[in-house]
Amino acid sequence: MKRPTIADVARRAGVSKGAVSYALNGQRGVSEATRQRILAIAAEIGFSPSSAARALSGATAKAVGLALCRPARILGIEPFFMELISGVEAELSARSYALTLQVVADQDAEIAVYRRWWAERRVDGVFVCDLRTEDRRVPALEELQLPAVVIGGPGHTGSLANVWSDEAAALAETVEYLVALGHRRIARVGGLPALLHTEIRSDAFTEVCGRLGLDESVTVWSDYTGEEGARATRRLLSSPNRPTAVIYDNDVMAIAGLSVAQEMGLQVPGDLSIVAWDDSPLCQLVHPPLTALGRDIPAYGAHAARQLLRVIAGEPTGGLQDETAHLTPRGSTAPPRVR
Amino acid sequence: MKRPTIADVARRAGVSKGAVSYALNGQRGVSEATRQRILAIAAEIGFSPSSAARALSGATAKAVGLALCRPARILGIEPFFMELISGVEAELSARSYALTLQVVADQDAEIAVYRRWWAERRVDGVFVCDLRTEDRRVPALEELQLPAVVIGGPGHTGSLANVWSDEAAALAETVEYLVALGHRRIARVGGLPALLHTEIRSDAFTEVCGRLGLDESVTVWSDYTGEEGARATRRLLSSPNRPTAVIYDNDVMAIAGLSVAQEMGLQVPGDLSIVAWDDSPLCQLVHPPLTALGRDIPAYGAHAARQLLRVIAGEPTGGLQDETAHLTPRGSTAPPRVR
Repeated sequence: MKRPTIADVARRAGVSKGAVSYALNGQRGVSEATRQRILAIAAEIGFSPSSAARALSGATAKAVGLALCRPARILGIEPFFMELISGVEAELSARSYALTLQVVADQDAEIAVYRRWWAERRVDGVFVCDLRTEDRRVPALEELQLPAVVIGGPGHTGSLANVWSDEAAALAETVEYLVALGHRRIARVGGLPALLHTEIRSDAFTEVCGRLGLDESVTVWSDYTGEEGARATRRLLSSPNRPTAVIYDNDVMAIAGLSVAQEMGLQVPGDLSIVAWDDSPLCQLVHPPLTALGRDIPAYGAHAARQLLRVIAGEPTGGLQDETAHLTPRGSTAPPRVR
Repeated sequence: MKRPTIADVARRAGVSKGAVSYALNGQRGVSEATRQRILAIAAEIGFSPSSAARALSGATAKAVGLALCRPARILGIEPFFMELISGVEAELSARSYALTLQVVADQDAEIAVYRRWWAERRVDGVFVCDLRTEDRRVPALEELQLPAVVIGGPGHTGSLANVWSDEAAALAETVEYLVALGHRRIARVGGLPALLHTEIRSDAFTEVCGRLGLDESVTVWSDYTGEEGARATRRLLSSPNRPTAVIYDNDVMAIAGLSVAQEMGLQVPGDLSIVAWDDSPLCQLVHPPLTALGRDIPAYGAHAARQLLRVIAGEPTGGLQDETAHLTPRGSTAPPRVR
């Protein structure tokens, strides 16, 4: 099967290739009737200008890039990124944009990918995930003037547009709920401490625990994997004044924590209440199902994509606050048993 | 920051743009010394021919496509696809190929995406997942002559290259292991029945159960979601002659099955043994950890990528058999208690 060319359209329409080009680009030089006839023929024989030709003619690559800096095994197990990608992709494909994906080892490799994409005109813009407080990617992208949207914040995004969710408010709501149930010794298993959203959650945890006089609150650090989440939970539950409730920074660590409680003979929720962030179908697979903080992650991805297309089009943008995660109580939280 | 052009290289080298082009393409017309000098200058100022220019000059798009026909929520929860993608992507990026991703609603939409990618020269080749026995994508890709590698098989791939794993052997090994433990009433919770690999597993299950005289073996169908996996398990465990062992077609359904057993007051593995296919870190998060059939999925993706690059280069290819999944016994399988 031969790929139809502009010459095929011109031959069938009985016009020059230049006329076809005028017609397709909506330029003057052909009558409206001829333009309609040319468009009909192009549609009929399946002609569409190659993306290469469009890009060279000064148009855009019609693709945006997403570089992910996480080990493959973690990417696989966390529903978050695939849900985000599916939301991004749905919005992009409706606008005929392609999504180019690349997994990178670290921030240096990620910046090198941005430079290559930019030099090769591979993408019209990029998404930036896992924002850090001192993030070298932000000035690198500003210098390249490559359109970008940071998925994260608020703050630390330089002149780049961003979408973000109020992590501090969600954390405070969760602690207040546990205190209302009667908990006083509340622990938190945090994700990678270098990430901005982890820091925001940590500051909020310190603030709300101070405000409510929870002197025995403690945060232990982990890396989002089940293995580390299990280790952190064993440490917490082996301490003399073990917590009666634990908040986990992702679903995978919360499920690992539930297993550790079962392994150590503790009842959930009687002896230990568990709250997972990033509600996902995983939270409802286990017994008891996990109380979780959730929001619509595919929608978050779609909003980021819309924001990036606006930046690419040169429209005014800035920071977009997305919905705040809300708490869904399930079987893993209850008033603590008196011990 | 201005993107360097071929004119910048020519100016610095004191040669014509034509000479730079000759040098970059390794054509005659410039001396070896001049060629080396031009290449050094190009590297120094960060010039790289735009992908659009390369594609137009008859070279390739340096991108391959992957269309995924699964709802976002299922894509997010199954580690399989993200692990596959990470393996594909690692191999591609080492060869400077980009991966273009698109989520599609059904096979018609997927075929339309292939036609568009082909017409726009967006990709040099594609991966085909979730092969069916009568798969309309195979003749569509043959007709387009778009390089393709099917991730699945054996058989039903027409003239397309493929990578596959022996699902029948893995299934038989699992049933034989359960029988060796003393199980006679073994059930299977199968994935989407329209998929070829589900059919291969079903045929193998029928064959091995017949061979070993397991008259009470039964398969119930599901759709890979935890919800349906739980429903299927409740049905199986409520039957008068309930099975003593269940094999699940993915990790998510197996975890849901474990929760249902706990909810119904059955001990795992004493009252019920559970085996999960697609071993993943999820299987080790739960208590007890799940006995599972596993293989290296990122490597499978890498092999598929290498195969596709071979097809694109016009090298001889065909079917490539990947490793067979192996059984890792963990705490969820044991001899059945006498009832």
